[in-house]
Amino acid sequence: MSRRVVVIGGVALGTKAACRAKRIDPTTQVTLIDKDEYISYGGCGIPYYVSGDVADHTALQSTAYHMVRNEEFFKTIKGFEEVVTGTTVTRIDREAKVVWAKGKDGVEKSYPYDKLVIGAGSRTRDLQIPGQELAGIHAVGNLEDAMAIKERIAGGSVESAVIVGAGFIGLEMAEALADMWGIETSVVEIGDQIMPGFVGKQMAHMAQRSMEENDVTFYLGETVKSFEGEEGAVKKVITDKRTLEADLVIMAVGILANGELARDAGLEVGATGGIVVNEKLQTTDPDIYSGGDCIELKHAISGKVGIWPLGSLANRQGRVIGTNMCGGSATTEAPVGSFVVKLFDKSLAGAGLTRKAAEEAGFDAISVSMCQLDRAHFYPEKELMFLELVVEKATKRVLGIQGFAGSGDAMVGRINAVAATLKYKPTILDISNLEFAYSPPFSSAMDIVNALANVADNVVDGLLNPIPVETFEGLWEEGECVFIDCRELPDSTPFKEKFPEKWMTIPQGEMKKRIAEVPEGKLVVLVCNTGVRSFEAQLNLREMGITNTVSVQGGMATLKTWGSKVSE
Amino acid sequence: MSRRVVVIGGVALGTKAACRAKRIDPTTQVTLIDKDEYISYGGCGIPYYVSGDVADHTALQSTAYHMVRNEEFFKTIKGFEEVVTGTTVTRIDREAKVVWAKGKDGVEKSYPYDKLVIGAGSRTRDLQIPGQELAGIHAVGNLEDAMAIKERIAGGSVESAVIVGAGFIGLEMAEALADMWGIETSVVEIGDQIMPGFVGKQMAHMAQRSMEENDVTFYLGETVKSFEGEEGAVKKVITDKRTLEADLVIMAVGILANGELARDAGLEVGATGGIVVNEKLQTTDPDIYSGGDCIELKHAISGKVGIWPLGSLANRQGRVIGTNMCGGSATTEAPVGSFVVKLFDKSLAGAGLTRKAAEEAGFDAISVSMCQLDRAHFYPEKELMFLELVVEKATKRVLGIQGFAGSGDAMVGRINAVAATLKYKPTILDISNLEFAYSPPFSSAMDIVNALANVADNVVDGLLNPIPVETFEGLWEEGECVFIDCRELPDSTPFKEKFPEKWMTIPQGEMKKRIAEVPEGKLVVLVCNTGVRSFEAQLNLREMGITNTVSVQGGMATLKTWGSKVSE
Repeated sequence: MSRRVVVIGGVALGTKAACRAKRIDPTTQVTLIDKDEYISYGGCGIPYYVSGDVADHTALQSTAYHMVRNEEFFKTIKGFEEVVTGTTVTRIDREAKVVWAKGKDGVEKSYPYDKLVIGAGSRTRDLQIPGQELAGIHAVGNLEDAMAIKERIAGGSVESAVIVGAGFIGLEMAEALADMWGIETSVVEIGDQIMPGFVGKQMAHMAQRSMEENDVTFYLGETVKSFEGEEGAVKKVITDKRTLEADLVIMAVGILANGELARDAGLEVGATGGIVVNEKLQTTDPDIYSGGDCIELKHAISGKVGIWPLGSLANRQGRVIGTNMCGGSATTEAPVGSFVVKLFDKSLAGAGLTRKAAEEAGFDAISVSMCQLDRAHFYPEKELMFLELVVEKATKRVLGIQGFAGSGDAMVGRINAVAATLKYKPTILDISNLEFAYSPPFSSAMDIVNALANVADNVVDGLLNPIPVETFEGLWEEGECVFIDCRELPDSTPFKEKFPEKWMTIPQGEMKKRIAEVPEGKLVVLVCNTGVRSFEAQLNLREMGITNTVSVQGGMATLKTWGSKVSE
Repeated sequence: MSRRVVVIGGVALGTKAACRAKRIDPTTQVTLIDKDEYISYGGCGIPYYVSGDVADHTALQSTAYHMVRNEEFFKTIKGFEEVVTGTTVTRIDREAKVVWAKGKDGVEKSYPYDKLVIGAGSRTRDLQIPGQELAGIHAVGNLEDAMAIKERIAGGSVESAVIVGAGFIGLEMAEALADMWGIETSVVEIGDQIMPGFVGKQMAHMAQRSMEENDVTFYLGETVKSFEGEEGAVKKVITDKRTLEADLVIMAVGILANGELARDAGLEVGATGGIVVNEKLQTTDPDIYSGGDCIELKHAISGKVGIWPLGSLANRQGRVIGTNMCGGSATTEAPVGSFVVKLFDKSLAGAGLTRKAAEEAGFDAISVSMCQLDRAHFYPEKELMFLELVVEKATKRVLGIQGFAGSGDAMVGRINAVAATLKYKPTILDISNLEFAYSPPFSSAMDIVNALANVADNVVDGLLNPIPVETFEGLWEEGECVFIDCRELPDSTPFKEKFPEKWMTIPQGEMKKRIAEVPEGKLVVLVCNTGVRSFEAQLNLREMGITNTVSVQGGMATLKTWGSKVSE
């Protein structure tokens, strides 16, 4: 008799697993059960649907060639036996190998299986904030939520919106509302930076600033205490510091894995709430597979267990499950946490660990950041790209990379290249030697990633003593030091005039012969355009016996993008 | 006494090596000797200088912040002891540790060294074609050549140009002439495709076609026999098949390593003419280092020895030499051959081996190609990307990848990511699991690279039986088969009407129930938009007992980009 596969949840993982199984063994009988009406939609596209970039929600459910992936599609095109929507699975009876589910009619029915796939997904965390039941307060959990949000906006009644949470979904929704609908948009975030856990403070600050330039307001380190409304609809968001007007509130406060069904069936569920699986994506019952948002996975580098709500991961996992259900032995890998988020005309991306995450994982880590043009400097079109590399000091092992840039594709390509090596535990030398396809329209002869690794190398070896922007800002306010601009005169003149007491100009090429001008006994803060010449100046001064120097990482270009007062 | 470093050749490698040494040990005394007047220029930028994208040649010699890297720069900014241009090294006396060089005044002088760096570069191959001494026939070997070419064009006397050689330089020069100056431009190539050795025939053909659409004419499989001129200036290029008018001829016929100096000094030089070095870039004399265009290196995958004329490689090698001259032990890696070339609004890139190169290296290899949108299909801006993966059949080891696309950054990013793994000998499963940062503005949930690996997996496992475009074209002409369009009706209608005898339409979803319509005993060629549904159709037919089927790789999208008659 042919293999009966039951799939719980038909968004990304479940349908992929079933389709793969059908391809390997067409006799496989597939039953797909989903609690919602809409299945197999691109959940990551919701912000683009809300913005209007994607006009119609059916586009999120379609194939690249405009076939809607609905019940009919999976039956006739993909050959599933049964597609049951609006139906909630109530229980898995592992002994009888049967799934019980309650249909639209309220009647419970059993579905026997040989192999079961749990793609139960996740739900938005419920913070139980007073007033959260008011109309106009939405999570972005599924397509129904998205349609409700869009309907409200398109109705024209939304003038101001508050987004709770400055992670991916929060920021993407902020762009959608502010950019395309002109809604006054604020983001309230409990942490002290946007994208906490994903990027370091410098990158976060630069990204936040670029969003502020696009009329999004941020309130960091604030907690939403309650919502207030009129006639049942939200009107105000009360935080621990202020009251914000809002006709629309988006709760983007993170997700919880839907692991309950598995737990109730006696399968192992971790402390995160996610289902425990092996590398073949089998749960503790070898005939039951799981993947996507409802499982927990260990980070490849930190080993930290977490939930990974990514459509890309779910698709890859689905294929592995499909293969294994048919007797194959495909395996998944521990994720390195590659991500990217587009924020108006800039992008923020990363892979591996931030410096903070590395320290939390027990690494004695440093991070170095730099900026460089994304193409050959003589090529007409080019932009600055900012990268940060996280490195374990003692071993020079590279633990992570983050980036911020205007040319998103170019930056993400570099993050992906470093990410591809992370499972092999690369050292700085590996990244310094990493071979990027070179041509002036695409990179510098010394690619920014190679250059970044070289900077890290210089720092670990003690050749270069850099400070990040945050430290520069502190020193600038405090004032117990001297700032030397190492650029040539035309570049440095305006600063010299603006800050005559603090700001000296000694071009790097003159540093050694003008050594007498360098004040003794004070910390010397060296600045140039991007940090290359201030590094050279630091070496020049060291050669002349002056060692109490620091070089500003990424130089004036970084100070400017970061929004330092000095660069105004 | 401090270390005396003599550097022969001041373009990319030599200056980088010397600067790195000075940074590690500022007491290092550097003497730089170069035969030309212009040093440290970005040679890869020459086509952009000739086109006018880069207005002034000093931009190619400048740092990102507009400092010209001339003799003065290296002396005052970088602290070199001596920079000697227009001076040709005549001999290396290894016993005395002295370099002899003849200066502008014709006088020979000796330069003692503790460590010597040979960055002698390369020269254009001399094909000794009759008439090659005529004015208007130029190589693109150095900045002087480029200035001569630009001067000729800017003078307005060039109406038609012939480029000999369809490699990187040839194609970039073709774009420069045709695009920016409107010159009637032809390329003559001895091989049967453009970019021979770098991409397979399908990619080459697609790229050629896109250049033809930009008014570049190609003559493949032709050999230049002679040049004819008037009043000492070239007027005609005579090939074995035709005569072409030309006021300007660019010889882009490959390079030879300048290994003679090393050979004369008794250092080992390989059969390629390139200097032999170890992974620390020491020649057979441990006090003499070399890198850049004048050394030979083994390809990381094929083991084939060759010359690698890339500014990027030279820069990375320069740093390694600088470190090692100061007592460090940095190493280089065998190159995987990453490359990219921009051709008008398209780009061609790759890393590792082509299928042909893999076969020549003794691998039993296949290649699979596919196309997919470069972003989520519902995202407003998106384009097709074409990729080809080369795989060893028995082991599923991935040997190489090539790509062709409009969004060059997005495509190159993917090539770089796969390239980054090649030294670790990845299998198809590694690439199938490769973690790309995912967000709809940057990729599909199943990234094209993951999808490509999955296609390769299906082919090696025998699930999918694809044919490349070239085979399709043959079958179309020959006619002993039936073509079934598996797309839905609106897409397939025009073809059905155009080719009623050859073209059947059975949408994949109906394949099983309309099985009786499939003619028996004939090869069935299945076509859809990109190859996904024809794969499904192949599985459907196999399930019904029909196994003599093939699926057109990349479907109609590929046929169209390739320029198949069927898609006209």
